[in-house]
Amino acid sequence: MAAPKNILFIMFDQLRWDYLSCYGHPHLKTPNLDRLASKGMRFDRCTIQSPLCGPSRMSTYTGRYVHSHGASWNNVPLKVGELTMGDHLRDLGMGCWLVGKTHMAADAEGMRRLGLEQDSVIGARVGECGFDIFERDDGMRPEGPDGLYDEGGALKYNEYLRGKGYESDNPWHDYANSGLDDDGNVLSGWFLENSDRPANIREDDSETPYLTRRGIEFIEQAEGPWCCHLSYIKPHWPYIVPEPYASMYGPQDFLPRVASETERETDHPVFKGFQNAPIGKALARDDVREKVLRAYMGLIKQCDDQMGVLFDFLERTGRMEDTLIVVTSDHGDFMGDHWMGEKTFFHEASVKVPLIVYDPSPEADATRGTTSDALVECIDFLPTFVEVAGGDPAKLDHILEGQSLLPMLRGGAAPEREVVVCEYDYSSSPLAGRLGLHPDQSRMFMVANQDWKMIHFESGHRPMLFDLRNDPQELEDLGASAAHADVRARMYDHLHVWARRPAARTTMSNEAFVKERTLGAGRTGVLIGIVEETELPQELTAKYTGRKAKDMRGTTPGTPGE
Amino acid sequence: MAAPKNILFIMFDQLRWDYLSCYGHPHLKTPNLDRLASKGMRFDRCTIQSPLCGPSRMSTYTGRYVHSHGASWNNVPLKVGELTMGDHLRDLGMGCWLVGKTHMAADAEGMRRLGLEQDSVIGARVGECGFDIFERDDGMRPEGPDGLYDEGGALKYNEYLRGKGYESDNPWHDYANSGLDDDGNVLSGWFLENSDRPANIREDDSETPYLTRRGIEFIEQAEGPWCCHLSYIKPHWPYIVPEPYASMYGPQDFLPRVASETERETDHPVFKGFQNAPIGKALARDDVREKVLRAYMGLIKQCDDQMGVLFDFLERTGRMEDTLIVVTSDHGDFMGDHWMGEKTFFHEASVKVPLIVYDPSPEADATRGTTSDALVECIDFLPTFVEVAGGDPAKLDHILEGQSLLPMLRGGAAPEREVVVCEYDYSSSPLAGRLGLHPDQSRMFMVANQDWKMIHFESGHRPMLFDLRNDPQELEDLGASAAHADVRARMYDHLHVWARRPAARTTMSNEAFVKERTLGAGRTGVLIGIVEETELPQELTAKYTGRKAKDMRGTTPGTPGE
Repeated sequence: MAAPKNILFIMFDQLRWDYLSCYGHPHLKTPNLDRLASKGMRFDRCTIQSPLCGPSRMSTYTGRYVHSHGASWNNVPLKVGELTMGDHLRDLGMGCWLVGKTHMAADAEGMRRLGLEQDSVIGARVGECGFDIFERDDGMRPEGPDGLYDEGGALKYNEYLRGKGYESDNPWHDYANSGLDDDGNVLSGWFLENSDRPANIREDDSETPYLTRRGIEFIEQAEGPWCCHLSYIKPHWPYIVPEPYASMYGPQDFLPRVASETERETDHPVFKGFQNAPIGKALARDDVREKVLRAYMGLIKQCDDQMGVLFDFLERTGRMEDTLIVVTSDHGDFMGDHWMGEKTFFHEASVKVPLIVYDPSPEADATRGTTSDALVECIDFLPTFVEVAGGDPAKLDHILEGQSLLPMLRGGAAPEREVVVCEYDYSSSPLAGRLGLHPDQSRMFMVANQDWKMIHFESGHRPMLFDLRNDPQELEDLGASAAHADVRARMYDHLHVWARRPAARTTMSNEAFVKERTLGAGRTGVLIGIVEETELPQELTAKYTGRKAKDMRGTTPGTPGE
Repeated sequence: MAAPKNILFIMFDQLRWDYLSCYGHPHLKTPNLDRLASKGMRFDRCTIQSPLCGPSRMSTYTGRYVHSHGASWNNVPLKVGELTMGDHLRDLGMGCWLVGKTHMAADAEGMRRLGLEQDSVIGARVGECGFDIFERDDGMRPEGPDGLYDEGGALKYNEYLRGKGYESDNPWHDYANSGLDDDGNVLSGWFLENSDRPANIREDDSETPYLTRRGIEFIEQAEGPWCCHLSYIKPHWPYIVPEPYASMYGPQDFLPRVASETERETDHPVFKGFQNAPIGKALARDDVREKVLRAYMGLIKQCDDQMGVLFDFLERTGRMEDTLIVVTSDHGDFMGDHWMGEKTFFHEASVKVPLIVYDPSPEADATRGTTSDALVECIDFLPTFVEVAGGDPAKLDHILEGQSLLPMLRGGAAPEREVVVCEYDYSSSPLAGRLGLHPDQSRMFMVANQDWKMIHFESGHRPMLFDLRNDPQELEDLGASAAHADVRARMYDHLHVWARRPAARTTMSNEAFVKERTLGAGRTGVLIGIVEETELPQELTAKYTGRKAKDMRGTTPGTPGE
């Protein structure tokens, strides 16, 4: 074992923290991830920055809050000028490669303005969120009356499938994400009634094994210190999985729904609105939830099996000894809890993600197999990687808003932070329309510590509040409780210190500001408030004293004045 | 008269609003600016976004708060990617040219990263805050033991002076900004004891007439619709002016100092700290204040005379009939009021600036010669210019944080705003060092409406509060008054709505977010929460239904998991 040379940054999509056995799932056994956890450190309080793929990922890839980078929703372009993981790591001599999903939308308008061509090296990186591309696969090739959701979605994967005999104009849909009835009709995975069917694909050709192989292919050919973002598409919807996973789990394996009748009767228009979304209503039905859970659990089991394949490869090739490995997710999935589906709210099912970090260094031996309930955020990954690559995250703390986890992994202190912050922008949702909200108003903020979680609504509706110690399932909303006014006030104070932070001040380091204090402008001749030259050391006034000039006053009279 | 085709955007530097006769100065007569005010509209409550050249200007040039663009102090580079006046106006077919000062520092690191060369058209604009350069002259060529403050400062102007016989390695200092004693010794304008001496330069060669001529030269050769930012250096320090202005004003003309003994005894460490800066101590002395005022008032009188020259030219050439003219300043000058000098605090002497807007359109006839006490900010100029150039500022309200003044100029409504916000970052000051503050803590925010002005200190010190209706001179700090707790709470609410605004969300318009609400992802095939296809119109499910596939399940068994 030695200090890690490389970084393998594995992200799943929509993977709930409590659906791994190392996090306590009683029936879904994930021995491969559990094994990594036993060799590394497992984090019990890792919070994402937004409960949606795009903004969560942009925070992870920039090390900055959504309020800082601005890509607040899927397909809101990350603006040219935001520094990414790739920018920081390449500056330190480490390559930064993508295998899989980013959900990045290029800032085409910003690129046009700056004359950046998508097919230049710099332009390609700006357009791909700073990554060099081994394979980009966002795993999404939906199509509707207005055309494709993503022109570039699953292109290579579809080509792969066709090469394997999956005949279709869109094998991603027809095979990888659909079932089949006895008459040869495609049963689309978009419809939840089909979620308990086996996907019509050889397991080996489905998306998770495919990406694992692509990850291995990357590592086999990689040179120099590298960071590989192996970014899986699953267990994200469409919820459907091939055999043997499709029939692996049944009702006896399902966790009970975490929800109460009181929640259903909430008077909170925004919370109520999210419950009433189609996915909330669908997953509020036990029959639908059970169909979906079969697929979801099967997909997770498949992910864990693929981790076994990958870790075996790493061990065989020696990479396990020189590679820092991170496994996490971009957000969770309500799966019917709190009468919601998807992830676009702030309960732990959604905003808490699994995080396992394995560091091969001998310094990390002391923490192997341990867990931590420190407040960790996804913006901490990038500072961690910067430190692994030999950089000093403290020198970048005017840009990076997280903190390195490396000290902690090696027995030192956890990040110093009083609260975690998560944001969600539902400006483009029908709910915002129904509530009559301007985009500026259809946003919400979560601020939480070990004891409390408060949700602020920019719509003007009252906050929600959960007592995490005494109500870890978050079933009782104390947002209107008079007895908790002081708690809410404290949480608002935290939110506002955060909101006022100088997040845009990224072009000058804190170190440089502090250095100016002693050097001062006087060192370059700017003298302010000096009445007589004798007030200053001669060194500072040298350029202004002992000088001679001709008398030019009045040599040609001007013609000023009224 | 017709709709304005061009924009002449005149900015002075460090010009106090109350030192123009149209704003009520009893002794300093500024008939040329008063004449423009009588033909246009004069604003009584125009607030800048930061009381310092660099950040104030970056807000004016981007139409965004300092908290949004991040260039929070002089020479903090404006980051690549921030859109500027030039970007917006050129998109609308209007040129955007600079004659004079911007205090822009190029984001060299950001440009390097994006491969932008300073000598390319795009690179030059990015490096020059979006302007095309007719002449840049920041009017600063100080020199100290560490070298020049600004390598490019006053280069062309120095060349001009040398061509006129001003022999020196730095005629900007030795002639334009210094006096001379009888023995031919340069008396530097940096030392305030020399401020009442005449500058050793022919009036006609000093900086203000020089820039006026350069402005006229620009206009004479300009083609197409243009915006010209004629950006004067004066009456900014060094405080010294040539004759006849040097001996034009004396004690009988000076406004009394606005200050109280109570202020001097303040218990507020930050306010006290700014009083104790060298410039505060110097201008607290009556003798120094009087020397400086002679120069300051003379410089302003010279500015007004040059406005006469310029406006005569515009009238003679017809430009007065097709050009919108704005006259303003980047901030004021305490000039010893409140025991401070310079501008780096939040009293009206500093944060309120003169603003005169002249619109040649017939629609503006109704408002000629009127004044307004509407809450206006410097971020409003750019939206105004966008509208003059034929654009719709509402379509840019995800980027531009101000509002167009054009409706108001034409008899319509004033900007809708409850408060104005101004910020100051003293991270690099010795005071921050003495108080032991991290850069994040050495910042302050002002939030004000027609009635109240509150100052929040990120250092943790108590706020300051002024009752603007009953104490317009801002002599009584109510920041600790128990009777005003509710006022402070309301002002904090305003500050925090502002701090939480989505300022970084600049790559997608509010219109586009709202449009998504009705179109939805379903139009491109993303179906979430649909149990059966029959729940949706056939149009939305067409790509997923009625499809056939081969049975691929189990054709080659996979080898998954345990």
